Amino acid sequence: MQKLLNDPADVVVEALAGMAAAHPDDLLVDMEQRVVSRRGGPVRGKVGLVSGGGSGHEPLHAGYVGPGMLDAACCGEVFTSPVPDQFVTALRTADGGAGVLHVVKNYTGDVLNAEMAAELLATEDGPQVEIVVTDDDVAVQDSLYTAGRRGVGGTVLLEKVVGAAAEEGRDLSGCAELARDVNARTRSMGVALGPCTVPAAGVPTFELEEGQMELGVGIHGEPGRRRVPLGTAREIAAALVEPVVADLGLRRGDAVVTLLNGMGGTPLLELYLMFNEVRAVLDAAGVTVARSLVGNYITSLEMAGCSVTLLRADDEVVRLWDAPVATPGLRWGA
Amino acid sequence: MQKLLNDPADVVVEALAGMAAAHPDDLLVDMEQRVVSRRGGPVRGKVGLVSGGGSGHEPLHAGYVGPGMLDAACCGEVFTSPVPDQFVTALRTADGGAGVLHVVKNYTGDVLNAEMAAELLATEDGPQVEIVVTDDDVAVQDSLYTAGRRGVGGTVLLEKVVGAAAEEGRDLSGCAELARDVNARTRSMGVALGPCTVPAAGVPTFELEEGQMELGVGIHGEPGRRRVPLGTAREIAAALVEPVVADLGLRRGDAVVTLLNGMGGTPLLELYLMFNEVRAVLDAAGVTVARSLVGNYITSLEMAGCSVTLLRADDEVVRLWDAPVATPGLRWGA
Repeated sequence: MQKLLNDPADVVVEALAGMAAAHPDDLLVDMEQRVVSRRGGPVRGKVGLVSGGGSGHEPLHAGYVGPGMLDAACCGEVFTSPVPDQFVTALRTADGGAGVLHVVKNYTGDVLNAEMAAELLATEDGPQVEIVVTDDDVAVQDSLYTAGRRGVGGTVLLEKVVGAAAEEGRDLSGCAELARDVNARTRSMGVALGPCTVPAAGVPTFELEEGQMELGVGIHGEPGRRRVPLGTAREIAAALVEPVVADLGLRRGDAVVTLLNGMGGTPLLELYLMFNEVRAVLDAAGVTVARSLVGNYITSLEMAGCSVTLLRADDEVVRLWDAPVATPGLRWGA
Repeated sequence: MQKLLNDPADVVVEALAGMAAAHPDDLLVDMEQRVVSRRGGPVRGKVGLVSGGGSGHEPLHAGYVGPGMLDAACCGEVFTSPVPDQFVTALRTADGGAGVLHVVKNYTGDVLNAEMAAELLATEDGPQVEIVVTDDDVAVQDSLYTAGRRGVGGTVLLEKVVGAAAEEGRDLSGCAELARDVNARTRSMGVALGPCTVPAAGVPTFELEEGQMELGVGIHGEPGRRRVPLGTAREIAAALVEPVVADLGLRRGDAVVTLLNGMGGTPLLELYLMFNEVRAVLDAAGVTVARSLVGNYITSLEMAGCSVTLLRADDEVVRLWDAPVATPGLRWGA
């Protein structure tokens, strides 16, 4: 295993120590509960925004803690849900008195643990919690860890848009409604060109022969739609974008926020090249790119490959997208 | 070769098309000369800042074009110097009437072509050009493509600091003096845990057995100091930081800007973990981290590994570091 590690059992806690050291003015890290929050938070009277999940998808989620996005994030072991106690700590940490919105990617363990945390808080006179589950991956209906569609790149876009609304003072039910609307208008699909290795396992999550790719792969290396011969970037763009466009029901004249996301082990040079092809497919469909992101935003350790996420945009989505954000992973206007 | 590509011969030009599409409001791309510049530039009366080099190191250099950093960058083929004509175009594009500072990483081809471009402009009544060569890599004295030390991660820090000074109105000789000073107070060292593949070659740049690492590797996969058994993150941090601290002559009480840079194929989780170890080595030496960056800032396609760059900081360096910057690869305060 060719990795920068000490004891594989300590990877998450040691990475969190590094994150705390790298962002001393902005982030506070509870090393015991593995909860990252805004320094100086919570913001009184603002709806708190919380997310979390297994580690290995950095910068998601802890890298999106900061003004304009999340108030707190909690970090499970690599590719493993946080336990309910961690979610409870994150939800309490984010509570500024106006309730907390908990964004959960649709994986069975994450959803169960999030629900258990909300129940614990309800019996403990904790903050009011609304859970919104993201399920934007069109690749497969059910998967290794999931009933229903998986939550993937759309989670990043949702956290940005709803984070801006919360910052403006929208109330908890308004934030939850917006989050469900953003999730409903967002779809994703990914492809793997190479696997990743979970440190505690020490072996690749799957095997992929040279010249093959896994179309519709999940962010933990779960199987996708099918394993097919490696195509050109042009063919791959069509294979990723067309199902997303069809599932969203996009029509000529529609506009989208586009995320061209690297899985962690693919060079930025290739990601920009892929974005050029994705935009060409959208152009041909008459769909406008209103805003875009190209880079590593929701990764799978060092997996090679990429995913495409489209969020159907309107003026309100674009306005919230453009609002200031100041986090380690996403920063503009601030 | 498991890559997102069409024809390997077109990778740079197609990636530039994607870059133009991803940053339509900020960047202008001359597809013929492969020169990326600020939209609306050059800035009248400001010293222009130009850099360039082989592609494959993204976001360096084109990703650092924007207010607070570069005015223009030109892009050679992967791991290959731009030709003099490209440098000439970039230097002319960046000229706002106050002369242009050309930052060149120390590789023999880049330096020769940069000097040729400056001579061409001198005979054509072009802008006044000052060349500053970066050579911050302590690993080896001479290398495969270089006489003297190689220019690596220090280039990113220099472009940020000098970009801020140029934005403040410092004149050409003042910018050149500052750039040489920053280069003189900056040192780097890197390690590879896995190779990368240049698209046109189709095979890895080097072979590395499981359980080995290349200490002191160059950003094109050039040989380093020695090939040794893969250490723990703690051991690797010591092996990278101690030679840099010694070469810089850092003493207890000194402060540094620290770049913990990923080579392109290493997960952010591991980079934060490494940063924790690097900081521990600096702590033990009594050296304070005044500012830091952790992430992929000067890459080698999908190479696995990292590098450490230290810039000896004083109040002026920190002030220029904190000044606003708004580029695809580095953004704050704007």
